[in-house]
This record gives sequence, C-alpha cells and structure tokens, in this order.
Amino acid sequence: MTEPRETRPWEELEEMAERGDARGLEACFRELSAVEAARAMSRLAPQIRGRVLATLAPPEAAELMEAIPDPQAADVLAELPAARAAAILHEMPGHEQADLISELGGEQAEEVLSAMDPAEAGEARRLAAFDSDVAGGLMITQYLAYRQSAPIEEVVGDLRRGVERYSDYDVQYVYVVSAAGALTGVLPLRDVLLARPGRSVAELMIPDPLAVDEQTSLDELGAFFDRHNFIGVPVTDAAGRLVGVVRRHDVNEARAGRAGSDYLKALGIVGGEELRSMPLLRRCRRRLSWLSINIVLNIIAASVIAAYQETLAAVIALAVFLPIISDMSGCSGNQAVAVSMRELTLGLIRPSEAVRTWLKEVTVGLINGLVLGLLLGLAAYAWRGNAWLGLVVGAAMALNTIVAVSIGGVVPLLLKRLRFDPALASGPILTTVTDMCGFFLVLSFATLMLSRLTG
Amino acid sequence: MTEPRETRPWEELEEMAERGDARGLEACFRELSAVEAARAMSRLAPQIRGRVLATLAPPEAAELMEAIPDPQAADVLAELPAARAAAILHEMPGHEQADLISELGGEQAEEVLSAMDPAEAGEARRLAAFDSDVAGGLMITQYLAYRQSAPIEEVVGDLRRGVERYSDYDVQYVYVVSAAGALTGVLPLRDVLLARPGRSVAELMIPDPLAVDEQTSLDELGAFFDRHNFIGVPVTDAAGRLVGVVRRHDVNEARAGRAGSDYLKALGIVGGEELRSMPLLRRCRRRLSWLSINIVLNIIAASVIAAYQETLAAVIALAVFLPIISDMSGCSGNQAVAVSMRELTLGLIRPSEAVRTWLKEVTVGLINGLVLGLLLGLAAYAWRGNAWLGLVVGAAMALNTIVAVSIGGVVPLLLKRLRFDPALASGPILTTVTDMCGFFLVLSFATLMLSRLTG
Repeated sequence: MTEPRETRPWEELEEMAERGDARGLEACFRELSAVEAARAMSRLAPQIRGRVLATLAPPEAAELMEAIPDPQAADVLAELPAARAAAILHEMPGHEQADLISELGGEQAEEVLSAMDPAEAGEARRLAAFDSDVAGGLMITQYLAYRQSAPIEEVVGDLRRGVERYSDYDVQYVYVVSAAGALTGVLPLRDVLLARPGRSVAELMIPDPLAVDEQTSLDELGAFFDRHNFIGVPVTDAAGRLVGVVRRHDVNEARAGRAGSDYLKALGIVGGEELRSMPLLRRCRRRLSWLSINIVLNIIAASVIAAYQETLAAVIALAVFLPIISDMSGCSGNQAVAVSMRELTLGLIRPSEAVRTWLKEVTVGLINGLVLGLLLGLAAYAWRGNAWLGLVVGAAMALNTIVAVSIGGVVPLLLKRLRFDPALASGPILTTVTDMCGFFLVLSFATLMLSRLTG
Repeated sequence: MTEPRETRPWEELEEMAERGDARGLEACFRELSAVEAARAMSRLAPQIRGRVLATLAPPEAAELMEAIPDPQAADVLAELPAARAAAILHEMPGHEQADLISELGGEQAEEVLSAMDPAEAGEARRLAAFDSDVAGGLMITQYLAYRQSAPIEEVVGDLRRGVERYSDYDVQYVYVVSAAGALTGVLPLRDVLLARPGRSVAELMIPDPLAVDEQTSLDELGAFFDRHNFIGVPVTDAAGRLVGVVRRHDVNEARAGRAGSDYLKALGIVGGEELRSMPLLRRCRRRLSWLSINIVLNIIAASVIAAYQETLAAVIALAVFLPIISDMSGCSGNQAVAVSMRELTLGLIRPSEAVRTWLKEVTVGLINGLVLGLLLGLAAYAWRGNAWLGLVVGAAMALNTIVAVSIGGVVPLLLKRLRFDPALASGPILTTVTDMCGFFLVLSFATLMLSRLTG
C-alpha cells in the first residue's frame, strides 16, 4: 500500500531550537496544522521541547500551547522556568490559562502562579478551582459587554474598530450590563445588524435574559440547551455579575468528550489521560493503580475455584471451560453496561429505574443465555462425548449469562445513584461477581453430577 | 437521598393519543425538553407511539422527530403509514430527512420515499447515499446564498425580511454564487454588518473561497478545521456548484461522537446503536452477532488448556490461576488499546508507526509485568507454600503482560492500516492471542517443572 511520504518536521524543529532560531521555528509551526504540531512536539525529547518554547516569542509559544492537547501542553510548561511559563500564559485567554493551571496541578501550578501578575494569577486560580464539568469550568471569559445606556451606534462603532481584536471572540451576542456589572440584557448580533439607527441598547436588548450560575452542572447545561435554542448562555456569579459565557458547542463537546473519557476508563485508563510522550514511570504508575485493584479482585473470584479442587481433580476437563465462562459472561455483561451507559447519557433512563432496566435485560439474558449455553454445551459434548458434561457446562453458561446482563444493566444505575463513576467501576464489579458466580455454578453443578461425569 | 418527584408524562400522552387530542399533545410536548420527550416516547408501546404521531399535526410531529435520537425517530416513523411519514419528513430540513431515511433503510425507506414529493425524495435519496462520515453526509443544506451582482443593501434587506424564517439557519456567513450556481465567494455576516452602504456583494466578498467536495472524509474535515479558524466550510459538487455547508461544530461533534461509538463497540455493541425501546429479538440478534464470534474464539483459546490436561491433573492448583492470567492480560492489553486509540484520534501516532508504539509499550510491559508477576507469584506461594508454583505462575504473568501490552498497543494501528475498524476488532484479537499465550506459558512452564510442583 502507498502512504503519503513521511515528513519529520521534528528533526528540523530540533535543529532550529539548538541554533536558537526563533524566526525559523515560528515559520515552521505556521506551516503545521494543530495536529501536526502536537505530533511533532510529542516526538521531541523533554529538554528540546523546553528549548523550543524558550526560543519562540511568548505570543507564538502561547499559540502553540493552545494548538496541542492540554496534558501535553502542561508537560511542556512544566519543563520551563516559572517566569517563562508565566509569560506564555499571559498571552492566553483566562479560561485556557485555567485549564493548563489545573492540568499542571500542585506545586508546579503554584510556582507558575506566583510568577504571574497577581491580578491575572488570582483570576486564573479562581477559574482553575472550578470543576471542568460545571459552568465556571466550561465558560469562556472573552465576551463583549456594553452598558445598557449606550446608543446602538456606539456598539456598531466599537465592533468596527475592534474587528481585528474581536476576530477570536466568535461574537454572536453582545451582553448588556448595569453600571455595577450586573447582567441586565442580551443583544443578538443579528439585531444589531438589523437595527434602525438612533436606538439605544436598552431599547433593543432582550431584558432579564436567562443565565446560569457558576456551579451549574454539565447535565443541567445540556438540558438547558436541549430546551432552549441558544448558541450561548451567560454565566453570573452569586452577586448576579456577568462573569463568562458558556457556548452550546462547548457543552456538546464536553458531553461527547465524556463518552471518550468513559471509553478510556472502561478499558482501564484512569486518573487522567495517558499520552506516550509522558514519562515512563508516570505511565506505569497510573496503569498499575487500576491493575493492582483488578488482580486482587481476580484472586478473590478465583478462590471459588480453589474451594472445588476435588471436583476439578475428578473432572479435569472442567478447567478448560472455566476461562470460557468467565470471559463470555464478561462480554454479555459489558454489552448491558454499554447500553445502560448510553441510555443514561441520552437521558432515556434515570438512575432510579433499576427495576425497569432489569426487566428489559433479563429477557435478553434468557434468550442469549439459551443460545450461548446450547453452543457451549454442544461443544463440550462433542469434545468428550459426555452429554452430562455438556449439560453442566451449558446450564452454567446459560444461567450465568442471565446473571451477567442483570448486573451489567443495573450496576451503572446504582453506581450513578451512589455518586460513583459508572464508567470506572462497572467493569471490575461486573467481572468479579460474574466470575465468582460462573465458577460456582459450573463447579457446584459438576459436584452434584460427579458420578455421571466420571462414569 | 432525595430525588426530584418522578413525573410520568407518558401516561398523560397515552390518554391524549387515545382521545385524539392534538392540541393537548402539542401543549404537552411543548412543556417537555428534548430529553424528556425522548424518554416519554421510549415508554410508550409501539402502537401508541404511532397514534401520537398520527394525532399531532405534521409540523409538530417533525419537531418531535428532530428532538429525539435518530434510531428512536426511525422506529417511530416505521410504525406510521408511508403517506403520514412522508408528510412529517416534508417538514424537516433535507439533511435531517436523509439521516432518518438512512436509519430506516431498505424497504421501509423505499416505501416512505415513494410517498414523498418526487423532487424532495430525490434530494433525500441523494443525501442519504452519503456515508455519515463524509462532507456530503455531515453538511447542512440550509444556507443563504446570493448572486455576486447583488448590492449589499439587497442582502441586508433580505435578511431583515427573513429574520423569522432564517432564525433556524445559524447564519454567520452568506455564500456568493454565479448565475450557474457555482460558488464564487463568501461573505461573513460581520462584514455585512460593518459594510458602508452602496457597495456590492462582489466587492465585499472573499473571492475563491476554500471549499471541500462531497466525499471529503471526517478526518480531512477535522484537519481542515484544525488548520483554518473557520466556523463552516462550503461544500461543492463535482461541477463546482454549492450544495451545502459543513459546520465546525458538527465536525467536532462527529469526531467526539466517534469516541462514543468506539466505547459501545469496545464493550460489544455493534451493528448500530441499541436502545431498550427496540424490539426484543432485534436486541438479542445484534448482541449475539458479537457473542457468537467471541465464544468460538474463546473455545479456540481454551483448547490450549486441553492439550495440557496431564499437567493440570498433576497440579490442580494451576486451574485457579488460568482465569486470573487470562483476565489480567486482557486488562493490561486493553489499557494499551485505549492509549493507541486515543493517540490515533488525536493524530499523535500514524498507523504506520507500529515499531515506535511497540517500543513505547514494551518498557511499560516490562515494569508492570514484573509488578503483577511478583504479586501473583507471592499469592501462589502464600497459598500453597510452594516457591516453584509461585515462580511458574509469576513468570507466566510477567511474560504475558509484555505480550499483552505489545499486542494491545500495536493491533489498533495494524487494523487501521488494513482499513478494519480498530474499536471493533482489537478486543477479540487481543484476548484470543493473550489467552492462548498465557495458557501456554503457565502450563508449559509447569510441565517443565512438574517434579518440583508435585514434590
């Protein structure tokens, strides 16, 4: 197969960084898309990355930081002297400063903050304190606000003068505030455009606009935008002052992004995103935090097998079917987990509807359990020519499928209700319970039928 | 804990549908958010859902269809007479008609299309033929286009007259076309706003705008928006005629949505999304399509155990560790799958970089394998007091962890390169290979050490 010729811009970047060629670096990054820049940075050794950032002028360095994923940008910032990191952050909008400060965390964040202008640091600290899934953490702090007493020509004039500066602002609404900064109205850009001259902002604005407070959750914001066909919603603080704007598409991205982070968690990547450009020991530690819990759960589940060693010794063929029943029950249960997670995300079920969900799953479990039990039972019979072995293995498979889909369907709801993260905890709970139950079913059935199996 | 009192709007909806109370239904849905409407519809029996849709006037029915998830909306449409379904589709924009027609599929889609106005049906059929991940499938067909000869006042006048009608259009750009419909320019709404009177569209427009063709892929669109700070990009057909607009946030949502569908696939939900409101047998069939492949793979993997029955019979304790090694290797490998999938999505690795990825994984596998092997080996030693058993089990766990992360890291890249879906196929390939390898390692080591283990 043919692939586009591999370019290696990082080799060029490295040379330029070593020469201290700021112009060359700048030109090189201008050529690269955001994805290409991120990929190139991930190929550079940590000290070279630091040199690239130290060579670029702060505005260009800030642009680069905004283009690459946050965890990667934070790693790069961490490699710089605090004063340099602060100078780069100074070139970014407040909400992006805050994202990087949160990602940095701990001492490193404090060092950078103390090197920043105190007012700017205070604002970044305030924004970084919000969770990433509440309005305060999602809002942008670049928006246009005008006094309600302003004539509309003043707004148009300011927009005209600011075209250059506002081009980053994604302006579709301007906000109207009182002298004290309280949000009093909102004015769609389209209305500014269509306004006859000579009117004031107060006359044209939509008064008492809907707003959310800083702690409004992502779910509530989602419901808000489901209900209202708005492009953005203003955010006010406890005193009713306008402090930011949450945009519909940021909410949609955050909701969709949750599916991505659920995917990572379901496959065992927890405690923050892993990129292969991160230090080896950090990657190992994060993965082990998940694996070490799992190995303990696995040992507990397998202890059921240990209790039936005599049966196993008598019918050694059973050892072949234990991992099959364990794995297949995990598969069936995970399908039910996936459907429950999806329906929770869509709002089609609520965490309190465990019984309804269970009834919907148990019928699927009955049918699929019969099919899988029959398949595995026949395979066992075909292999050993013992119909009783087929019956024991098939019945255990069938029953355990029902158990697995019941647990898989219901556990995410219960975890959500208890305010645990269902994406994270459903898998280990599911596999531990279904393993124990599956091992118990096949080995206890076999113990009951021992004379038929060894006959 | 306290929960908001459970409301059951579907009971009210059912009564109204049975009474044929169109006004009541309309008022009831106006009260519900999109999510609440979807949830209520999912609670109604199929024939009642049909009656709700038959009672509502087509414009209100269309609004409801747009509010609920596509698979659910298609199921509801399928329950209606074709003429009624066509009347409801008539009230929707072209790209949403096309989404529902694709979701319906096959004969049902044909029936509805033949009941539609022929020109409208032709357009819907044309749009539905695009894959959902190319520009033609992602574009909206509601946009504003003006002839390049028009004076700017005509555009402003049209916008003013059309305020009501265009309020759904999310207007930020207007497009400029030649008399033959070819795209010749683009005009940001802001520039219309800021234009001095007396100029023509041709003078103000940005000529020869960037455009994509209908078959541009989601990845290419993503790269386009990474590179260009645009809100939307016009789509032209082979003849250069403007046929639609792809918006940045639709591309972002589709990219993020892919993470959601990867999540479903990784947990075994394939061949389309499952909602619990779907018919039981369809749900069972779809889940079984995945499970039946898996059970065959599982039986193949477990056949390795069958080959070592004598060793197992001699050291029955080994049977306890087989499912543990199988499950833990799956966990370690899936972590590597998750990181590779994430880096592929971010563009940080390319499908051709298997060797680089493997080198990054094998070091993690070495460290994590040592830790997990030590844990499991110590557990085995503590249980049976036989250091050789600990050594056999621990060494197999350690080595198989290295195998698992290698396969987990590299397989998604290879699948992507061979144009298979990595989210779908990585898991089964991973677990089959690591199971076989894990069973082989522990049982062949045990066979070599048999005298020490039974001593």
